[in-house]
Formats: sequence, structure tokens, C-alpha cells
Amino acid sequence: MPDQLKHLLHQVAAGDLSPEMAYEQLKSYEDLGFAKVDYHRVRRKGFPEVIFGSGKTADQIVELFKRLMTQHKIILATRVSKDKAAAVRQSLPELSYDHTARILYYADKPLEPRTKGAIGILCAGTADLPVAEEAALTALAMGNRVKRFYDVGVAGIHRLFHHLEQIKQCRVLIVIAGMEGALPSVVGGLVHQPVIAVPTSVGYGAHFNGLAPLLTMLNSCSSGVTVVNIDNGFGAAYSASLINQLGEE
Amino acid sequence: MPDQLKHLLHQVAAGDLSPEMAYEQLKSYEDLGFAKVDYHRVRRKGFPEVIFGSGKTADQIVELFKRLMTQHKIILATRVSKDKAAAVRQSLPELSYDHTARILYYADKPLEPRTKGAIGILCAGTADLPVAEEAALTALAMGNRVKRFYDVGVAGIHRLFHHLEQIKQCRVLIVIAGMEGALPSVVGGLVHQPVIAVPTSVGYGAHFNGLAPLLTMLNSCSSGVTVVNIDNGFGAAYSASLINQLGEE
Amino acid sequence: MPDQLKHLLHQVAAGDLSPEMAYEQLKSYEDLGFAKVDYHRVRRKGFPEVIFGSGKTADQIVELFKRLMTQHKIILATRVSKDKAAAVRQSLPELSYDHTARILYYADKPLEPRTKGAIGILCAGTADLPVAEEAALTALAMGNRVKRFYDVGVAGIHRLFHHLEQIKQCRVLIVIAGMEGALPSVVGGLVHQPVIAVPTSVGYGAHFNGLAPLLTMLNSCSSGVTVVNIDNGFGAAYSASLINQLGEE
Amino acid sequence: MPDQLKHLLHQVAAGDLSPEMAYEQLKSYEDLGFAKVDYHRVRRKGFPEVIFGSGKTADQIVELFKRLMTQHKIILATRVSKDKAAAVRQSLPELSYDHTARILYYADKPLEPRTKGAIGILCAGTADLPVAEEAALTALAMGNRVKRFYDVGVAGIHRLFHHLEQIKQCRVLIVIAGMEGALPSVVGGLVHQPVIAVPTSVGYGAHFNGLAPLLTMLNSCSSGVTVVNIDNGFGAAYSASLINQLGEE
Amino acid sequence: MPDQLKHLLHQVAAGDLSPEMAYEQLKSYEDLGFAKVDYHRVRRKGFPEVIFGSGKTADQIVELFKRLMTQHKIILATRVSKDKAAAVRQSLPELSYDHTARILYYADKPLEPRTKGAIGILCAGTADLPVAEEAALTALAMGNRVKRFYDVGVAGIHRLFHHLEQIKQCRVLIVIAGMEGALPSVVGGLVHQPVIAVPTSVGYGAHFNGLAPLLTMLNSCSSGVTVVNIDNGFGAAYSASLINQLGEE
Amino acid sequence: MPDQLKHLLHQVAAGDLSPEMAYEQLKSYEDLGFAKVDYHRVRRKGFPEVIFGSGKTADQIVELFKRLMTQHKIILATRVSKDKAAAVRQSLPELSYDHTARILYYADKPLEPRTKGAIGILCAGTADLPVAEEAALTALAMGNRVKRFYDVGVAGIHRLFHHLEQIKQCRVLIVIAGMEGALPSVVGGLVHQPVIAVPTSVGYGAHFNGLAPLLTMLNSCSSGVTVVNIDNGFGAAYSASLINQLGEE
Amino acid sequence: MPDQLKHLLHQVAAGDLSPEMAYEQLKSYEDLGFAKVDYHRVRRKGFPEVIFGSGKTADQIVELFKRLMTQHKIILATRVSKDKAAAVRQSLPELSYDHTARILYYADKPLEPRTKGAIGILCAGTADLPVAEEAALTALAMGNRVKRFYDVGVAGIHRLFHHLEQIKQCRVLIVIAGMEGALPSVVGGLVHQPVIAVPTSVGYGAHFNGLAPLLTMLNSCSSGVTVVNIDNGFGAAYSASLINQLGEE
Amino acid sequence: MPDQLKHLLHQVAAGDLSPEMAYEQLKSYEDLGFAKVDYHRVRRKGFPEVIFGSGKTADQIVELFKRLMTQHKIILATRVSKDKAAAVRQSLPELSYDHTARILYYADKPLEPRTKGAIGILCAGTADLPVAEEAALTALAMGNRVKRFYDVGVAGIHRLFHHLEQIKQCRVLIVIAGMEGALPSVVGGLVHQPVIAVPTSVGYGAHFNGLAPLLTMLNSCSSGVTVVNIDNGFGAAYSASLINQLGEE
Repeated sequence: MPDQLKHLLHQVAAGDLSPEMAYEQLKSYEDLGFAKVDYHRVRRKGFPEVIFGSGKTADQIVELFKRLMTQHKIILATRVSKDKAAAVRQSLPELSYDHTARILYYADKPLEPRTKGAIGILCAGTADLPVAEEAALTALAMGNRVKRFYDVGVAGIHRLFHHLEQIKQCRVLIVIAGMEGALPSVVGGLVHQPVIAVPTSVGYGAHFNGLAPLLTMLNSCSSGVTVVNIDNGFGAAYSASLINQLGEE
Repeated sequence: MPDQLKHLLHQVAAGDLSPEMAYEQLKSYEDLGFAKVDYHRVRRKGFPEVIFGSGKTADQIVELFKRLMTQHKIILATRVSKDKAAAVRQSLPELSYDHTARILYYADKPLEPRTKGAIGILCAGTADLPVAEEAALTALAMGNRVKRFYDVGVAGIHRLFHHLEQIKQCRVLIVIAGMEGALPSVVGGLVHQPVIAVPTSVGYGAHFNGLAPLLTMLNSCSSGVTVVNIDNGFGAAYSASLINQLGEE
Repeated sequence: MPDQLKHLLHQVAAGDLSPEMAYEQLKSYEDLGFAKVDYHRVRRKGFPEVIFGSGKTADQIVELFKRLMTQHKIILATRVSKDKAAAVRQSLPELSYDHTARILYYADKPLEPRTKGAIGILCAGTADLPVAEEAALTALAMGNRVKRFYDVGVAGIHRLFHHLEQIKQCRVLIVIAGMEGALPSVVGGLVHQPVIAVPTSVGYGAHFNGLAPLLTMLNSCSSGVTVVNIDNGFGAAYSASLINQLGEE
Repeated sequence: MPDQLKHLLHQVAAGDLSPEMAYEQLKSYEDLGFAKVDYHRVRRKGFPEVIFGSGKTADQIVELFKRLMTQHKIILATRVSKDKAAAVRQSLPELSYDHTARILYYADKPLEPRTKGAIGILCAGTADLPVAEEAALTALAMGNRVKRFYDVGVAGIHRLFHHLEQIKQCRVLIVIAGMEGALPSVVGGLVHQPVIAVPTSVGYGAHFNGLAPLLTMLNSCSSGVTVVNIDNGFGAAYSASLINQLGEE
Repeated sequence: MPDQLKHLLHQVAAGDLSPEMAYEQLKSYEDLGFAKVDYHRVRRKGFPEVIFGSGKTADQIVELFKRLMTQHKIILATRVSKDKAAAVRQSLPELSYDHTARILYYADKPLEPRTKGAIGILCAGTADLPVAEEAALTALAMGNRVKRFYDVGVAGIHRLFHHLEQIKQCRVLIVIAGMEGALPSVVGGLVHQPVIAVPTSVGYGAHFNGLAPLLTMLNSCSSGVTVVNIDNGFGAAYSASLINQLGEE
Repeated sequence: MPDQLKHLLHQVAAGDLSPEMAYEQLKSYEDLGFAKVDYHRVRRKGFPEVIFGSGKTADQIVELFKRLMTQHKIILATRVSKDKAAAVRQSLPELSYDHTARILYYADKPLEPRTKGAIGILCAGTADLPVAEEAALTALAMGNRVKRFYDVGVAGIHRLFHHLEQIKQCRVLIVIAGMEGALPSVVGGLVHQPVIAVPTSVGYGAHFNGLAPLLTMLNSCSSGVTVVNIDNGFGAAYSASLINQLGEE
Repeated sequence: MPDQLKHLLHQVAAGDLSPEMAYEQLKSYEDLGFAKVDYHRVRRKGFPEVIFGSGKTADQIVELFKRLMTQHKIILATRVSKDKAAAVRQSLPELSYDHTARILYYADKPLEPRTKGAIGILCAGTADLPVAEEAALTALAMGNRVKRFYDVGVAGIHRLFHHLEQIKQCRVLIVIAGMEGALPSVVGGLVHQPVIAVPTSVGYGAHFNGLAPLLTMLNSCSSGVTVVNIDNGFGAAYSASLINQLGEE
Repeated sequence: MPDQLKHLLHQVAAGDLSPEMAYEQLKSYEDLGFAKVDYHRVRRKGFPEVIFGSGKTADQIVELFKRLMTQHKIILATRVSKDKAAAVRQSLPELSYDHTARILYYADKPLEPRTKGAIGILCAGTADLPVAEEAALTALAMGNRVKRFYDVGVAGIHRLFHHLEQIKQCRVLIVIAGMEGALPSVVGGLVHQPVIAVPTSVGYGAHFNGLAPLLTMLNSCSSGVTVVNIDNGFGAAYSASLINQLGEE
């Protein structure tokens, strides 16, 4: 920011830029009252603001989509329940909804991967699918090629080994597991790709809604493993996309 | 007890046993003031009372050994620090001390396995050795054949596979791990032996002194895994011995 | 695995086995898309894959049963609610459902114990019955003789003593308790059988959904007690079955 | 207080009491700067203020004893380490110190029970002795007859039954246990006396410095059990004394 | 028990008692399959077994009442929801139900206090009433005189002082509080009665369903305070009754 | 109180005040049975008692409003659900209800700020609005000018900087955030106003219903930040009002 | 910042300010390598940067004092142990050290209060003194009049009432308590000043190093109470100073 | 592995490879008894096994270095205390030791970056330096260019903005913070690089040894942030290196 600022100041001093215009360049959002739409996020972060659907009303989501659709070609809303999605789509029938991923989204054309490198998404069990698909759809929406390796948990570890060569051909891996969450450690010990581990809330008793696999993953004895919040498929895919696209440069 | 009691009552009724003698048969410990030595434990549990050394003074340990040595041929005291062991052995030089296992013990002859079947002891990392050796020495003292498979953690899982056939020849397995504690799940998915998992306090940060691997093991998605307290190598070996000796019958 | 591998390699070198056939021997599951059915588990673990019903749809459970029924004679699905069970049985009326145990299962003939030795199942209170019955039915399905000792909690400890001799005739014990979970410690102090302790979520307030009895059982001062996850009657029975059948050899 | 106040107001109105005197009756402590000595506590609570030694300097403890000794015949300071006690006794050699109970105290004559009824103090293991003796000495200092039943933990429950009749002759019971803390539940199921349960910090791993037995005791399925803080032998004895002396009336 | 046993043995030896009769004296419960009714509890504990309604079906509660009604004149079932109570009363219209206390009970005649001394029940706020009334009705059913002091929390402490003299005339106090749970400490500092503190689940956020007031009460700096589980009005009243009736002797 | 008491005592001694009148001055609440209405709170605290609606029935709320309306001109009930508010307003149609803030209130005239200084209310995201509005309406009801700065979370920090000068013109700030709760630290580093931080329960997974932002705020490295309970918009506004009105003096 | 920026931009446009000078106005700290000394904090926050002594070496503290002493007249370093303070003072003998408060500080002249209004500091017990004195010295260094009310905990609540009138004459209160931390709730119910509550780590067992009083204070049922981190006397005084000085305006 | 296996099998079938040689290719570690040195890790993971120094003796570390030095040119041992490092270097004087990073390492030539892209390491405060330097030295040892931005915490956020352009020129960022851990969220909101967040144990009270910033970072509302264990500078650098080197391809 200082350099940008210095540059701006020199432009203003040189008369190349009016003070008003300089100031306007910092104005980067629109105030809807209940929210401030962040138009510049695409410039700062490389992808437009994503709507976190949980805790917002259908009306608020409609409004946010409408504003963001004036500026962007792909817009995601995550954690949108089936019923809320239906309500939003009554106003905005051009939106698509993925039931498993619980993502409501707008895309001006069908989603297609733009990258050569792929993000591999592994999950340990069938019940982890919603988190895995949230990650997969997010990754695709951000332009990434995605490869899925589902139900490869450690209770039947040969299923993992069977796919190991394909897994190693991905550029970055998202490894999702509930229960005890051991899969990222095992994968991390076998590959040289960055691994993003996602604990899920799938389990019971001393699982404490995801605390158990979260701690497992944070304490992984395998190197190259980082962790996101419980059930945060979106966040894992966002980071994985940043990493995958570094490899494209 | 009811049957034993009925029998006793009939003996008394028949005059085969005096009431005093009947009563005496229930008196099964000696009162030292600071402790009640439980002589009958060997009858109830199949192994004499084991002294938990932590929190007892050297003098108390000496006294307990002296009394138990009048009745038993093998006596263990666990969690005895090096210094405390030295102090005890000044009074009782016939005791042996294992530095890694932190066990002080009396045995009237060299410890030797009596079972055909073996208890396999696996541990994930070098720092888990004290717990593994506490288990190994306890198991041996209880008469079991012991096989050690150390440093076979999931970060280099080929080390585990290399020993898998030998591991499968044991009758029961003790699997010890700190850090994220994933090893019992991986082992549990590969074998049909009962697995007793032991979390250790080896780790840092979100490990919370063993809470992380404890939760991992309790949530294991592999069947056939049960768990003992953090660092409880003794307890794991005690249970493993009961199980191994079932197989001898 | 190395020995199996060596053997395979020699067979291939000797021309006794084609490389393709050798490779095929490692292929041991079927990919349904949402799940990979693990046909080899019976070979690795001695019992076919068990369906964890919680978090799976009725359709997924139907599909899994259909595939597993092509290979196995007894198949269990645990944690299946009454409604989900009814939905599954519309497609597969040959399945049975136990309301208390919440287990849906297929058996080609009536379940009967094959072992001489029995697994004793003790529970502290009436509210622990669903966990106890999950254990009992699992144990029976795995071929074990089962003896039930229900409502023998420590608040009326004479009820326990009354059955003690019968309890001592079992080969391995599953001891289930909610509230403060003291029963496994008391039982563990009286018997020489391996005890598998199961904390339940029955309680309120500082019970924290089973945390209190879980900690109680992990800290048991009685030897020979190992622990499984809260409410995990299935897991306790699985381990107990492995142990009981060691005694049959 | 309102009634006392009304009475005072009437006395003042009647001229029987000067406003100053009335006011003085509410002044009930002395200000030492670092502490306000509470002389009225004996009137409000039936026993003088007890010095909590932990976190106070030897000098502060000396000063507090000196002031309280001007008013009271028995004064206790709990949680006083051996070294701190020695330092205090250099200034006040008339004080006594109990090493096990870690209590430093002043008594104008030897401590003797004044009650007919007894407080029974049970503890589960040898390592719980300091807490048990803190309770015993506190109870005696408050004038109670005390009966000790030590090392009667549930791992060898016959030791408890052997003393049951004597235990039942006490008026109130303090039951102290570390590890899993099951003893109060077992005792509470067998007697009709009020039971005050004291968890201790004796244990390791998932014991969490006393959390495990604390939760056990709070969730006791036996009626008539109340609980005090971990290691709080003093508090248990204080309540037990209030209860025991109700029985004397 | 040993003494009782000795006596029995001598009776048997003297021929005054047949072995069968002696044995029968230890048989003290009836087995309903799902539960073992404990008829001797009234002898051991001074009050018949109380039915914990939560987690039992209406049918199970009906059955338990029927059996207990053959032996006892007052029977309580706690934690019975309005709907479950209605279902039970269809079979057993002679039962009474208290909506606030959530207690369903049988009494052969109207409940009346038998003690001279009273149990004082204080609660901090209106939302704590169900717990307070559970305590009050339990205390009354056990024959105690009860005095209620409701809504006397520390935010308006003058309301407490206004009743202080009446409070001091009770023999034992139950002090109930949610939120921060400070009331027992304040009361404990002002009176010389035993105080039984009951934390409630009334609160939000960092209250953690009663953990906050539970910790407050366990750490009370006032002497003479013991604690029961969160919302356990029944348990507090049970202990208070034992204490109050000591004062009657 | 002592000084007030001294004065009263002198008045009584001088005959200027009857003892009965003096006593009456301390009687400051009305007993409704289920609650004691605290009329003096306005004198002690500067604002009448506020009804905490959660856990009270509509009938109890009606009764409390009726009594308080005899004495006060503004009365608030917080945490009142939409349905409960409707039920109360059937009896008391003169009450107003704010849906976002979940506050039901009585005001004898429209609410208007009386202070020159303003309380600034910042919140991080749209989902925090209910807490923010609970704070805003409480602050207004207590007579404060309020300025809102919503949706200024750290993910788009330029939105915060854009309003920084306006924010600095407030006298005291309430900063509300869910998720990781970083906003109070950032604001606290930029301003010299007292900051009251409010964590909210908005989040998922390792958020633990507000524990995460609560800890964040308690550990703030910025000076001048104090914290209230999770979702406690009312409490933040109450303290902010006390502070804002200090600046009016 | 935007407004400041606009102004700067106009100045640059008008030629009143060179771009370099404008840029320099944002440069507000000095880089020592291991730290960046924040000279502008006094402008942003009204008081210079305070050194947090814990975890810094004596050499680092010396260096930081030297730099800050070139700019400021009063500089504090908190949490400085006795030994570290001595080491720093060997280099900088002009610094003062307060043993109880553990604060090392520089002041160009004796510390004196500049405000009319006072900050009242209350603490519950003698062991809380270090936290209380950290607050007192910080408040004084920031120019505030300070009044101390120590050892006024709820176990002897008359000591609090005795000082209530003096307490009410302060403008803002800091209330410090360990153990169960009930004092702020009691004080908060009696006064109309803002109360800043400070939990301390003084306690044992279920106190969990300050967690118990922290939760107590966050759940206070009294209005007008905000909370800072455990043992954070400095933070409480900093906020109290901001509030007190609002009243001076 | 399957593909590698197929290839091997075909080689063996073709006689190009003896079964023994094929088998040998899977033997990839050396057994030291207390540890199994994993020579293949460099092949699997791209970097040789790193010695975790904590919990290993100096002798064990010497032995591990000796073996690894036969195979690799750079070897790290992390978490080595000053004293242990000195002991190891007596045997192996060719090792270097970094006091701040607590890393002992062997390098056959001076460490030099090989990448064009840089890893940026930001830390919030001076006390976080050991973690930051552990990350920096690890990153350098793995061949990465490193840029340090220290002491840029949110309490003085202008220090961060001053370096923002330089920060944005890095390819991946490691952001380290103790206390409330807000820095990664703020950074994550401003940049489009992948951010690896490292909580540290620097803090006190409700910090719970790093739990507070850990939760903060896991709940970050900024996208593109993943998290490693508390104080795990090594792990963050390892992942950052994998990511940075993707950008080199």
C-alpha cells in the first residue's frame, strides 16, 4: 500500500490525477445497509467475495447475488440449505444449486477447468461426501481441474494404495476425514505434494463434533500437512486453488 | 460370592467349619496403617497386587515389597523414578530396576516367558519407548512371550508393512503412539488380532499432553481396537496378558 | 505383506502366475462411486465390512447390502433408525431389524452361537439397554454365546454380587455404564477376565454426554480394563468376539 | 439482618443505645493493610477465620496468627509447606505443624473431640493421605470425633466391606478418592449417612489433575452424595463438622 | 456386613437358621428383565428407590411403579415430562404430577412434613424454579419441613438480607443459582448452616450449560458449601434430608 | 451503606424518623411469588430492572411489565422470541417489539437520545446484526446517541478504514464479531476510545459456539479492550451507556 | 484515515506538501530488527507503547527503554521478574521497580495523579495483591487518582458494605478476584459505576488457573460489568483510565 | 504403488529382475533398534527425514546424524535445547546450531537459496521470534529464498501496511502470532498468496498455551488461510517450501 500510495501521491503532484479520482480508487465497496459488498476483493484476492449462506435470509442472499452479478461472472454462496436455495431461485432462476455440496451459484457459462494441474480430493468415508463436494465444486468454480478419490479411509488402506500413483500426479491434495481423521497423516507420509487436511463432524461420542480429527490433523507426524476448520471444504479448496495456480505460472 | 457363601453356610451348618474359620476366609489383607496389603488379589485377579510407585515414598515402597515378598514370587512397582529406585534398593538390593521402563521389581528367578503365543508391542516413535518398555516388562513378568516392533509410525508406513507378517503371528497387539496417534487405526485395519491402543504424552501444542492421540484412538474407524489411559503401558500389558493366556487354554 | 509379495514374485518368476493375475489378487474391493465395498475385509479381519448406518441414506444402505449379500452370509448395519430401517426393508424385506439395538441385518439362517465360551454383558442401568443390546446382537452375529447381566449398577451393589459366580464363568466381559461409570472398576477389581468398558451418553449436567464415565473408565484403578468410545456397543462386542474366539482355539 | 437492624433502631430510638455504639456493633474486623482480619466470623460461622496458607508469605502468616491469637483459642492455617511452616515457627514456636496434613495450627490445649458422633474419613489409596489428614485434623480442631478408614478403594472392595459396620456407625462420611474416584458412589449405595466426596489430584493422563474423579463424583448414581473441590480436605471437614454437630443438639 | 455375616453364620451354626433362609436374606431385589427392583434400598438408605424418569419409556415407568407400590407408601419418579406423565397416569390414575418440579409420585396420603427443623431452599432467579421445586417436593416427600426463598440473587442483594434471619432459622440450606452462580458463596459467608449448592443450566454463551456456576460453587471461598450436579434438585434435597433428620435425633 | 446507616441511626435517635419509617426505607422490592420486583434498582444502578425474557413464560413477562410500568417510563425485556412477544402484546398492546434485536419494550414516549456523545457500534458481518441491534436499542433506551458501522470485518479491512474518522468521533465503542473475532483488536490498535468487545455465536466447527472469538478478545494485544459474554449485546450497551454518560458530566 | 488521506492529497496537489513529506508522515516507528518501536502509539492511543516484559530478554528490554526514553516521559514494562529487573537496572539505574506489581518503569518526575475522579481498585483476597498493584501503578502512571479497597471478598461481605460509600465516590471500579470470583457480581449489583472485572489465577483444583472466576465474571447477572484476561491488571487499568478521563472532559 | 508393482512384476516375469532384487527395492530403511532410519523419505517426500530432537537423548541424536550423514547433504534436528546441542556437537563438531531457532543441523556447504520465489515470514511480536526463526532456517535449508517481516502485529497495524507491497511479492506467506492471533486474518484479507498460519504459545491466562490463537486462525474469515500446530514453525516452512517450489516449475 505505501508504494501504491507513493505512486498515487506523485500522480496527484504531477497533476496526472485529481485528488477526487485518487480518493475514489480506494472506494471499493457498496453499502447495502445490512452488508457492504466488497467489489475489490477480486483485485485483492483473485476471486470475488463468496457469500456465506448460513445465518443469512433468502432475501439477503438474493440482494447480494444481484449486486455481485453486476460485476462478476462466477459467484458462489456456500452452506445454503435446500429450502433456502429454492427460495432464492424463485427470484433468481438463473442460479444453479448442488444438493450434495449445498452450494448455490451463478456462472455465466458452464464451469470448466482452466488449469493443467489438478487438485486431488480424497475422503475417508461416504458420510464425508458433502464436505468433499463443497471442496470439489469450489475448486472447479475457481478454474481448477479436480480428481476425486472417495472412500479410501485407513480401515481398508489397500484402497488408498491402489490409487496412489494417480494421487501422486495431482499438484496439491485435499484430504478429508471424520472419525479419528488419520487419513491425512498416512497420505502425507507417502507423497511430496502439499496436503490440506479437513476434519469433518462425522462421528459420535468422544469425537466431539470434529474436535478429535481436528487435533489428529494438527498433530500429524507427517510433514507437509496444513489444516482448516471442521467441515470447511470451501476453505480447503480456496487455498488449494491458490497453490495449484502457482504451478501454472 | 453367593455360591461360595452358600457353600460356606452349608459347611458351617454341617459343623465342618467353625464360624470363626468361615469368617477368617474372608479376611484377605494386612493393614500397614498407610496401606492395606491385598494378599487375595492373586486369587481374584491371577496376579499379585502391583505397587503404583508414583506418589509413594521410598520407605512406603520398601515396606510394601517386604510384605508382598513373604507371599509372592514376582512383584512389580511401576512409575518408580531412578532416584527413588536407588533409595529402595539400598534396603532391598535383591530388587532389579529397568531404567527405560521405570519398573522396580522382585523376581525369585530370571523372568522367562511361559506362553506359546506372543504379545506384539508396536510403537510409532523413539520417544514412546518408555511406555513400550513398561508394557514389555510387565507382559514378560506375567509370563508372556513378547515381540517388539518399534518406530513403525505412519509417516513411513513401509516400515510397518515390512513387519506385517510377523505382527500377524502374535496373538494380541499393543500399539503405542504419541503425536496424532494414527498407528492403531492403520494396524487395526490390517490385522484380525485384538488391538490395545496406548496414547502417549509425546507431542506438543494442540496435543494437550496426550489428549489428541487418546481421542484419535477412541474414534478409530477400525474394528477390534480398545484403549487405555495415556502412557499406561502397564495397563495395556495387563489386559494383553489376560487375553494372550486365554489362547493358551 | 512382504512375505506374500516375495511368494508372488517367485510365482511370477517361475511362470506359475501371470503378472495380471498377481496384480488382480490385490484388487479387493468394488467401487460404487459413493463408496468402495471392501470384500477382502473378511479375509483381513475375520468378519465382513459392517455398515455404519448413521449419516447414510436409505438408498445407500440398500445398495451396500445388495453388494455385500452377493459375498457374505451375515451382514450388519448399525445405528439405523426405525424409520430408515423401514425404508430399507421395503426394498429388502429379507432383512431383520432389532429395535432396541438399532441394528438392521441380513442372515441366511437364524443367528446361533458357535462358541463354547461366553461373552458376559453387564450394564448399570435400564437406560443403557440400547448400547447393551447393540453389543449383544453384534456378539451373537459374530458367533458368540452371550450372557446378559442388566441393571447391576453400584447404587445397589448386592445385585452385582448376586451374579458374580455366573459372571466369572464368562470368558470376557463387556461392562456398560452411564452416569459416573463406576461399574467397570468395581467389576475389574473382582474378576480375572478381560473387561471392555463402554461409557454411555446417559446422564445430564456435568456428565457432558458421556465424557464423565469415559474419564472414569480410562482412569480405572482396577487392572485388566480397556475402553471404547462412548455408546460404542458394536466396537466392544467386536473386540470381545476376537478375544472370546482366541479361547476357542 | 433486618430484624437485628429493627431491634437496633428501636434501642437507639429508646435511647438505650447511642448511635455510635450501634454503629460499632457492625465494625467487626481489623485492617492490616494487606488483609482485613475477620473477628466476627466465629459469630457468623461458628469457627474463627482459617488462614489459607498458599500464596501468602511467612511474614503475612505470622502477622495473621498474632492478631487472631488475641481473640481465639484454636487457629488453623492450611496448605502451608514444610519450609514456610518452619519459617513461621521461628517467630511463633508455640504453633504445631502436621507434615502430612500440611496444617500449621495454634491450640491453647491439646486437641480433643467434644462430640459423641464421629466423622468417618475413608480414602481409596495411599497417595490420598495428605487430603485425608487435612480433613481429619480440621475435623478434630473443630471438636469432632474422627474415625479413619484408609486404603479401601474399589480395586479390592472386600477391604471396604470388612469395615462397613464401623463405617455405618459414623454420623457423616468424608470419602476421598483420586484415579477414577468411584469410591463415593459405592459407599453412597451402601449407607444412609450423608457422604461428602472429595476428588484428589492423584492420577495421570486422562485424569487431568482431578477432573476425572470430580466428574465421577458429581454424576454419582448413589443418593446422598455432595462434592467439594479437588483436594479440598479442609472444606469437606468443615461441612462435615457442621453436619455432625447438628446431630449433637 | 462382616458383623451381620458373623451373626448369620453363628445362627446357622446354632441351627437357628437354615442355610436357605440365611441365603434368602441377601436376596433383596426383583428382576423385571429390563430392571432389577431394589426393595432393600429403603433398609440401606432410609428411602425407597427413586425412578429416574429421563430415558425410560412410559411403560417401563408404569411397571416400576406397580412393583414398588406393593412395598412402599411414597414413590417418586423425577425428570418426567408432561406428556410421559400423562401416559403413565392413564394406567395409574392414583399418581400425582407436579408440573414445575416435573415429578410424578405416588403417596398413600397427602404429603406432610414430619420434622421440626426446616430445609431452606433459596434460588437466584425465576428461571431456576423447576430445579428449586424438584428439591422442594423431594424434601417434602422425605418428610421434611421446607421454607422457600426465591429470586434472591446477588444482583439485588438486599432481597437476600431482608430474609436473612428467617434463613438462619433453617437447619440446612439448598442454594440454587444459574448464570454466574455466586449466591451460595454469599450465603455461605453469612450463615453457619451447611449449604448445598446447586448450579443450574440457566444461562447462555460462556455459561456452557451450567459449567460456569458449577465451577463457581466448587471454588467457593466460603466454608461449609458442598455441591451437586447441574440441575440436580433431587440430589440436593436427598442430602439435605439426611442432614436435617440428623438434627431430629 | 454504613454512612447511610449512621445517618439513619442519628435521625432515629433525634426522633426525626420513626424506627418503622427507617426500616421501610430498606424495603425496596415487591414479592410476586415467582419473582421479587426490584424497584430500587433504578436508584442503585441508574436504570430500572431489565427483564431477561429467555426461560420466562409469556404470563410471567406480562406480570413483570405490569408491575414495573407502575413505577418506570422505560422498561426492556431482552431475548424475547417473536412468538412470545406476540403473546405478551395480546395482553399489553402498548408494548413495542423489535424483531432483529428481539427486544420487547415499553416507553411512554418515542425513544430519543439525550446525550451529546455517541456510542459507536461496529460489527464484523451481517450475521452479527441481532447482537448489534440488541446493543443499539438498549443504548438508545438508556438515552444514548448511537452510530452504526456494520459489516466492517477484517476480511475487507478497507471498509473499516473508510469509516475510521467517524468512528473516532464516538465516545465509546462496542465492537461485535463472530468467526475468529479479530475486529476488536484491530480497532483497539487504531483508536483511543474504550472498546467493549462482544463475541458472537456466529461460526461453525472449531468456533465452539462463540468460544473462539471470546478467547480472541480476552487475549487482545491492543490496550483498552474489555469483553462481555458471547452474544451479550445488552450488557455491552449497558456498560457503554455508563461510560458515555460519564463524559456528559 | 480516508479524510486524513484526502487532506494530504489536496495538500500535495496544491504543492503545499512534497510527496516525500506526505509519505514520511505515515512512517511512525523505528525498526530495531527484533522489534519495531511504535512512536505513534501515543498519538493513536493517548499513551506510549508499553513493554510486555514476559518472554523478552533483559537486553531487549534495555534496548526498548533506551529508544522509547528518547521520545516519552513515562514508560512502563509489565511482567518483569525481580531478577530481570535487576539486570535491566544495571544498564539503566534511573528506572524504578515495584516488587509487588512486577512493573519496571521510567518516569522523568515522581508519579502524581492529574485527575479529579478516582479509579477504585477492589480485591477479594490477599493473594490477589500483585494483580491489584499492577493495576494501581498502571493507573497512576497514566495520571489517575487511585483508591484501594483490598481484602473485601464475599466470604466476609460486611467488609465490603463498610466501604460502600467510599467505593461509590469513585468514577470507575476495577474489581479483582480469584477463587470463585463472585465479587464483581456483588459490587455490580450495588453501584452504578462501570465495573471492570479481573479474574486471577489464585485458586486450585477446579479453578483451572483462573478459568473458574473468568467464567463467573463473564456470566455476571449484574449489569455494567465487563471483563479482561486472567491476571490482566494492566489491561483493566488501561481501560479504566480511558473511562476515568472521559469524566474529566 | 500398484503401477510400480505391475512394472516390477513384469520385469520379474521377463527375467529382467531377480525376485530378490525386486524385494530389495522395497527395503528402504535401516534398523538402529531404538529407531528405523528412513532413507527413502527423500524419494517419497523430496527432503530427508528430519530429527525431532525433543524427547531424544544426545546419544540417540548423534547416532541418527551419523547414519543420515552417510546418505544426505543437509540434515536438520529441530527442538534441540542449547545443552543437548552442545553435547551432540562434542561428538559431531561439524554440526551447526542456531540458538534462536533451536535447530541443530548438518550441511555440506553454506546454506543458500535456490528458488527465485520467496517465502515471506511475518510475525506479530518479539516473543514469537523462536518460532519464526525455526521456520526461516527450515525454509532456507530446503532451498528457499526467505524474507522476514517481524513485529508487524495488529496493535500497530501501520507497520504491516508499510511492508505490504514487499509482502505481496512473496509467493507464499507464513504468518506467526501468539496472544489473540489476529494477524493471519488481517493479512489473508489483503493478499492473494496462500497463507500458512502458525499460532504460538506466547500469552497468558485465557490463552491456554496457544489454544486461543489456534482457534482464531482456524476460524479465520479470510480465505486462503491454512493452519499448523502451535509453535510448529518447522511444519509451516515444510509446507511453504512444497508450495513455493511448485511455482518454480
